[in-house]
Amino acid sequence: MTTHAFEPIAAVPLAAGARMHALIEQLFPIPRSITGPGFRDTLDILEETAGPMVRHRFATGEQVFDWVIPDEWEIRSAWLKGPDGRTIVDLGDSTLHVVSYSEPVHFRLSRAELEPHLHSLPLQPDAIPYVTSYYSRTWGFCLPHRLRESLPDGEYEVHIDADLGPGRVEIGEVTIPGRTQQEVLFSTYCCHPAMANNELSGPVVAAYLAEWLRERHPSPRLTYRFLFMPETIGSIAYLSRFGERLRERLAAGYVITCAGDTGDLTYKRSRRGDSLADRIAEHALRHLGEPHSLVDFVPVGSDERQYCSPGFDLPVGSLMRTAYGSFPEYHTSLDDLSLVTPDCLAGSLDAYRRLVDALEANETWRNTAPLCEPQLGRRGLYGSLGGSDRRRDQRIADLLWILNLCDGSSDLLAAAERCGRPVWELAPVCAELAAHGLLERVG
Amino acid sequence: MTTHAFEPIAAVPLAAGARMHALIEQLFPIPRSITGPGFRDTLDILEETAGPMVRHRFATGEQVFDWVIPDEWEIRSAWLKGPDGRTIVDLGDSTLHVVSYSEPVHFRLSRAELEPHLHSLPLQPDAIPYVTSYYSRTWGFCLPHRLRESLPDGEYEVHIDADLGPGRVEIGEVTIPGRTQQEVLFSTYCCHPAMANNELSGPVVAAYLAEWLRERHPSPRLTYRFLFMPETIGSIAYLSRFGERLRERLAAGYVITCAGDTGDLTYKRSRRGDSLADRIAEHALRHLGEPHSLVDFVPVGSDERQYCSPGFDLPVGSLMRTAYGSFPEYHTSLDDLSLVTPDCLAGSLDAYRRLVDALEANETWRNTAPLCEPQLGRRGLYGSLGGSDRRRDQRIADLLWILNLCDGSSDLLAAAERCGRPVWELAPVCAELAAHGLLERVG
Amino acid sequence: MTTHAFEPIAAVPLAAGARMHALIEQLFPIPRSITGPGFRDTLDILEETAGPMVRHRFATGEQVFDWVIPDEWEIRSAWLKGPDGRTIVDLGDSTLHVVSYSEPVHFRLSRAELEPHLHSLPLQPDAIPYVTSYYSRTWGFCLPHRLRESLPDGEYEVHIDADLGPGRVEIGEVTIPGRTQQEVLFSTYCCHPAMANNELSGPVVAAYLAEWLRERHPSPRLTYRFLFMPETIGSIAYLSRFGERLRERLAAGYVITCAGDTGDLTYKRSRRGDSLADRIAEHALRHLGEPHSLVDFVPVGSDERQYCSPGFDLPVGSLMRTAYGSFPEYHTSLDDLSLVTPDCLAGSLDAYRRLVDALEANETWRNTAPLCEPQLGRRGLYGSLGGSDRRRDQRIADLLWILNLCDGSSDLLAAAERCGRPVWELAPVCAELAAHGLLERVG
Repeated sequence: MTTHAFEPIAAVPLAAGARMHALIEQLFPIPRSITGPGFRDTLDILEETAGPMVRHRFATGEQVFDWVIPDEWEIRSAWLKGPDGRTIVDLGDSTLHVVSYSEPVHFRLSRAELEPHLHSLPLQPDAIPYVTSYYSRTWGFCLPHRLRESLPDGEYEVHIDADLGPGRVEIGEVTIPGRTQQEVLFSTYCCHPAMANNELSGPVVAAYLAEWLRERHPSPRLTYRFLFMPETIGSIAYLSRFGERLRERLAAGYVITCAGDTGDLTYKRSRRGDSLADRIAEHALRHLGEPHSLVDFVPVGSDERQYCSPGFDLPVGSLMRTAYGSFPEYHTSLDDLSLVTPDCLAGSLDAYRRLVDALEANETWRNTAPLCEPQLGRRGLYGSLGGSDRRRDQRIADLLWILNLCDGSSDLLAAAERCGRPVWELAPVCAELAAHGLLERVG
Repeated sequence: MTTHAFEPIAAVPLAAGARMHALIEQLFPIPRSITGPGFRDTLDILEETAGPMVRHRFATGEQVFDWVIPDEWEIRSAWLKGPDGRTIVDLGDSTLHVVSYSEPVHFRLSRAELEPHLHSLPLQPDAIPYVTSYYSRTWGFCLPHRLRESLPDGEYEVHIDADLGPGRVEIGEVTIPGRTQQEVLFSTYCCHPAMANNELSGPVVAAYLAEWLRERHPSPRLTYRFLFMPETIGSIAYLSRFGERLRERLAAGYVITCAGDTGDLTYKRSRRGDSLADRIAEHALRHLGEPHSLVDFVPVGSDERQYCSPGFDLPVGSLMRTAYGSFPEYHTSLDDLSLVTPDCLAGSLDAYRRLVDALEANETWRNTAPLCEPQLGRRGLYGSLGGSDRRRDQRIADLLWILNLCDGSSDLLAAAERCGRPVWELAPVCAELAAHGLLERVG
Repeated sequence: MTTHAFEPIAAVPLAAGARMHALIEQLFPIPRSITGPGFRDTLDILEETAGPMVRHRFATGEQVFDWVIPDEWEIRSAWLKGPDGRTIVDLGDSTLHVVSYSEPVHFRLSRAELEPHLHSLPLQPDAIPYVTSYYSRTWGFCLPHRLRESLPDGEYEVHIDADLGPGRVEIGEVTIPGRTQQEVLFSTYCCHPAMANNELSGPVVAAYLAEWLRERHPSPRLTYRFLFMPETIGSIAYLSRFGERLRERLAAGYVITCAGDTGDLTYKRSRRGDSLADRIAEHALRHLGEPHSLVDFVPVGSDERQYCSPGFDLPVGSLMRTAYGSFPEYHTSLDDLSLVTPDCLAGSLDAYRRLVDALEANETWRNTAPLCEPQLGRRGLYGSLGGSDRRRDQRIADLLWILNLCDGSSDLLAAAERCGRPVWELAPVCAELAAHGLLERVG
């Protein structure tokens, strides 16, 4: 561990927030689903920031636990024309207009026959809802309720030019290898069309976190994996192939989603509730000093449902801003580019950076002179301390706390919690004591 | 487990409350003590509602742990006459007028000689106190303090026609056999003369609970035992004969007493404090929604003192309304038929029914597909759900919670506590998942 | 255990407080440091009250864990004269005027050369600070900041007549042997010059506690040791020689310091936080009924830093009034005889006496008739109880609680905590039950 690694953390420069927002703008119009070229294009663009991505592929028909990999879906164009021949909705205006995984259709039908294929939100009459049907064949259009109610009787023409056939589910994985085999997972999903907070904020923050990690911790203690996946089927497929490894090596994991809105940070605990992922997140948020809330695990949500299924029970939580389902724009066209701000994206990235710094700092140490206090003065550990009195007193208190608490029985985080200090500020004190032979690493 | 068993519970019909009150009225005048014909008559009447009763008998002189079964006492008549020959108190007016276990006497004596044999309450001058002397021979009369103070000097005549001699302590036991050997105990006592809340409310609620249990759970999972006993000596005698069985099989037990007054429900915890009896009672009361209080075990009280003695430490609590000793009418003639109401008796019965439903529901389940979520849509577990959206969302949440939490390591109650749902509403969801092969019983 | 040992505790007579204050006055002017004749004279005087003291000696140069026993220091006289030949400060006015462990000097020097050898407190301009330099050679004078600022330029004369050379660190130990090998430690320090609260209050309360203990508990259950030491080097030296014995036998220990000011009592927990020392102190303070505060262990403080170092982790806390560092007079000449009062010294002694009584009372008992309640009436355990009804009810409740809770699995303190009673009032009830064969000692 270099001292460099624990220099004071500057706030994420505003420029990073602006760059993240620009990346969301770039990705927004791409027609995405859980499979298909739009999904792959999205991975290609994210790779430019996140770094080299291994692509894990799961072929249509492959069994992944209780599930089967579905057909691949490619949407080329879709429109609905009214009795007067005018276009009512067109995929070109919004990729939300067509039900994901719609089968190809092209025919005329009455208003009544069309009705069950239309989806709208009576309580949000100007929003286009987000509707999918991955596992049962159908087709449909999504549109504002106000527009739907204006549709007259008569003959309509529906056109969906799409392919549904054998292909693959794909997962992009960026790995930053560490000095130990213990792993940290950042999991995010890229399968939603034109929505900014849930979901483009997630993969974009993940990509920038990977970029920063390479620079900040060029040789990290832990191995970091960033997964860019289709939601649900992606994490199930990944776990079916790599679940055993995660069970053995995963120290902590986080699902990154809803990371750009202006709400406070929210940490959703893992199923265990007291896993390292939870301890680190709660510690980092407390010392970050931003308003935030902590919520217990519930089995409704995103991919933590799979990581925290009882057969895995992995230490995976989720750090968000406003949780999915808690903001009215969720899963509609109102979750647009205006809902996410550069500042809030930067704030989320900053919080995730703290998680990484806390994880890197969290070694286990043992006092090598545990019988009474060692004589610090003789070693210049008092005299060598500069700065104001207050900084000096804090430094001496840190030295004494670490010597007192680090008996090899628990990690530095436990000591940091007990003395009320951020673990990333204690790590350099440990390094200094280790340099004097008064502390040694355990395990 | 049939679905029937977990249909919504209707409130206890008012008629049941009225019938319980009528039964208390019927039992009230019978001269009862811990032994004797009055006690046996009481059991005979309760048996008509509670169902067939096995009578366990313990003969006078039998050693039961540190105690010896006392003589049987039969009281036929008792009166005290004043200097003017007029009757001052008469057993016929109230069975409380004579000290329980008074020896037979008939002679004349002075006011001063009479004095130590009179019992009254200066602070409740209109009440007749309840006084007993089971284990040391004496005799006495109980009377209102106001009356006692009006007694002039002169010669009095005392007459107590009673038998004290070899006989037996008797316990009535109603058993409803279950599909497993695990047992639930409802323990109540029938040894007090003319008092309604403490104690006739207890055996009457117990009898009606037994009647309901046979109808509601014709083939229950657990074996239920209802004990109608003399207090203290009854539970000590029962434990001396059946304590080992209880130690092996008792899942939960409750002492039923003070069940008819208008106070809120009170649950007194077992000595352990976190036994199944306690967890079930606190859960049921929370979801019952009635105001109630929880109090920790104290070794002052009723038969839980014996069940919770350190050598047994059984999971036995007590669900009451106002606890003994906390209402001013306790152990006096003021604890009369007006102190208990049909509504409150019905409310207590309802609470006890919830305990039974919670106990029946509390199986242990294991998710058979614990690696990631099973695909519920394919099994129609989404589509098959009808009703309003809110009910549907709750049902899906229930399904996901159960699949997530039921890993075979803890009972359904633990899952219910974690997701904040009544265990009796989760049981049918478990049954549905089990029908799809997604859940299996453990143990 | 005699009944005598648990008679009601009378408040410490005011006379004791006055005697303690007088002893502090006597000790105040003696020139003390961690070694030397002043320290030894102090032990001699304390011995008159505390009882015979074994003196443990550690020779200069001896290695004690990470430390080396320093030279012995004897100060005879010291003064600083100004350009006009007038004396500015003189050891005879206050033993604080010279830096402890100053080397001998006698020469003339300029104001500028003198400057780094002067110590004062700008924010407390009338106070003389307490400064030491045990482990690096230097010399210096301590004086009020106001006086320092008035010193003109010119030639000064410094004179310090002191010896620094081979000698010893000395510890006075008073032992009151008990019936068991378990030990209790009261540790205090006598190395500070002219300061009353921190520190003379500590050794004086310790001496009077020892005196009282001999009278109150002539044959105590536990072995009590009182240590009168130089701070830090004393406890390190003691632990280097006797640490293994403490690790095996120490039941509880307390550092006595800051025991005479008018602040509320403060208990600083041991590193473990839930050791017997902590349980006893919190229990005793709760039942003492005086306002007090509880603070968690921090590795800044007095000799508990050594006892609670991770290699020992002994059950040692500290019961103080206002903690060191929390009162402005700390480590200055303002901590004088007016800062400590007879009443507050007596109050501290009273609190420490409660700790002893609680420790003596805290045996472990087992109910010999644990199956149901024993029949107390037959043994006269009801009838034998006199006094008011309220006292009688409390006595019966105590009997029932003890029979219920004392199952041999935990100490009497645990039972006392559960039933909310002071352990020293339960001990005689245990003795009475034991006399009836209903209770037996464990271990």
